[in-house]
Amino acid sequence: MVRRVTQADVAARAGVSRALVSLVLRDAANVSDHRRRVVLDAIAELGYRPDAAARHLGRRTRTIGVVVQDLHYPFFAEVVDGIQSGAAEHGLQVLINTGLRDPDVERAAIETFLELRMDGVVLISPALPDERLVEAAGVVPTVLVGRPPAGPGVDAVVTDERLGGLLAVRHLLDLGHRRILDVTADVPNAASTGREAGYRQALEEAGLGDAARIVRTSDDVVAAAGSWPGGARATALFGHDDFVAVDAWARLVEAGDPVPAVVGYDNTNFAGLPLLSLTSVDQPRLLMGRTAVEMLVERVAGRTDPRHEVLTPTLVERASSRRAPAS
Amino acid sequence: MVRRVTQADVAARAGVSRALVSLVLRDAANVSDHRRRVVLDAIAELGYRPDAAARHLGRRTRTIGVVVQDLHYPFFAEVVDGIQSGAAEHGLQVLINTGLRDPDVERAAIETFLELRMDGVVLISPALPDERLVEAAGVVPTVLVGRPPAGPGVDAVVTDERLGGLLAVRHLLDLGHRRILDVTADVPNAASTGREAGYRQALEEAGLGDAARIVRTSDDVVAAAGSWPGGARATALFGHDDFVAVDAWARLVEAGDPVPAVVGYDNTNFAGLPLLSLTSVDQPRLLMGRTAVEMLVERVAGRTDPRHEVLTPTLVERASSRRAPAS
Repeated sequence: MVRRVTQADVAARAGVSRALVSLVLRDAANVSDHRRRVVLDAIAELGYRPDAAARHLGRRTRTIGVVVQDLHYPFFAEVVDGIQSGAAEHGLQVLINTGLRDPDVERAAIETFLELRMDGVVLISPALPDERLVEAAGVVPTVLVGRPPAGPGVDAVVTDERLGGLLAVRHLLDLGHRRILDVTADVPNAASTGREAGYRQALEEAGLGDAARIVRTSDDVVAAAGSWPGGARATALFGHDDFVAVDAWARLVEAGDPVPAVVGYDNTNFAGLPLLSLTSVDQPRLLMGRTAVEMLVERVAGRTDPRHEVLTPTLVERASSRRAPAS
Repeated sequence: MVRRVTQADVAARAGVSRALVSLVLRDAANVSDHRRRVVLDAIAELGYRPDAAARHLGRRTRTIGVVVQDLHYPFFAEVVDGIQSGAAEHGLQVLINTGLRDPDVERAAIETFLELRMDGVVLISPALPDERLVEAAGVVPTVLVGRPPAGPGVDAVVTDERLGGLLAVRHLLDLGHRRILDVTADVPNAASTGREAGYRQALEEAGLGDAARIVRTSDDVVAAAGSWPGGARATALFGHDDFVAVDAWARLVEAGDPVPAVVGYDNTNFAGLPLLSLTSVDQPRLLMGRTAVEMLVERVAGRTDPRHEVLTPTLVERASSRRAPAS
């Protein structure tokens, strides 16, 4: 039996993504002439014939695809809770795929969803460059969670990350801390950049702009904690997320530092463990997930103007909100 | 436009699962005459005509579906890591759906995978009764992880749960503990039953059969900790999983008990947090996931005899392995 030529074959021959092949087949407007030509050439060379059924765009699977980056960090599971709750109300099923914080894996995950004709996709903290996200949104309604919109056809729901950083660091300043270490993400992203900006702004508001110390990996935490004038050590730390915060906290304690005041981010179930009792910035995760589903449902119903929601974080105080030692 | 009658419509009319409709359409042997008749009646009433393309059973999607019960507990994510690693080696994509520990949600998740024509499905700790799992396995290669096989057509990979309980409790006995509280699952399942049996066996081996105290929810932990003769309190606890263990531990400490020795189960990233440093029974999660994929690949290649793997757990010791206080 002769194997059918597929869109994946065309994509491979053309050296482009499967999503781009779909775009060209749908005559999407946002494809450059050059890229369109490359795809059309590959189609001609391979004798690809679009499957009539597969082009029946009105067909609904009543299923939405969600790409999460990491199944181990509970924040993502909690956004998915919101997506599932919103989807259930609309009679939609939810399928999940992982991006593993790797653009290639993420792209393959999106393409699987395109092939399965999801009604829409939600990408939580995607790692792909904007142009790829715009491409996906040309094929299927696409919502980004935790990352600003990549283009006019893409919807997005984020929280105000700068405000989150501000809330965390103002809280530590209110507790009397003046040497506050910021442990940020090892690979910068939109979220970490916003949180860092809030950290800096809070210190500047307090006239402590020179006291900012930002480290990118936990390996540098112990050294950086002693980097204020005269070797004075950090009394508090702000972590990019709960896991980073707890890891940095443990490193300081193991190195013999007194237990610092600690603020994490995401208010995961880690933070709530009574033995950790970590103060943390809460993103409204359920609402983020539910809003993403709403956006998809609106797109399927015909909305074409973009929607971009910025939600407001709050601070949840727990026992790790220790006062600064008297000095 | 007249809407096509689907298998889902037939299932709804007949009051049976979509999987059973598939089974009948495939002339599967393990369907009772009564159930077959109900389905065939519904097919006749609704005028259902199988889609030729949909019956093309040789078609491969090169995608496997995984049903996890809970995205918040890291153990499941770690089994999925193994599944993804095995799948990648075979050029397979992985899609995930959640069962939420609810048989109805789990069934809907499986049916979505059947409709999407997955090459196989992996069910991690499924909640459905055996007969439903056998039905699913009649439609698509099906592997259970963390639950014994439901029937001859179903493959399974488990760890030896009784041995896990034995390792945990023998360890606590070796540390001098004699009053060891077992905090088990709130809803009994194959895993919790095995771990409880190991707990009882270890105590019996030590001549302490009368000292067994098993509680089903954390709410009862503080009371049960004082239920040995003369009101003597527990010095150690064994938790059904890491989360249960940490929760119970915190409740005892908050109630004023000395910090007990604690052993959890699953060796999740929770257990490894330096501030918790929880001794835990490790299941070979990556191997469990990889073995499940292997089993599916063999089924797709034509294996029909069942395969059932029992893997061996190990104990990972950390700081929560405290010695019993001198008495």
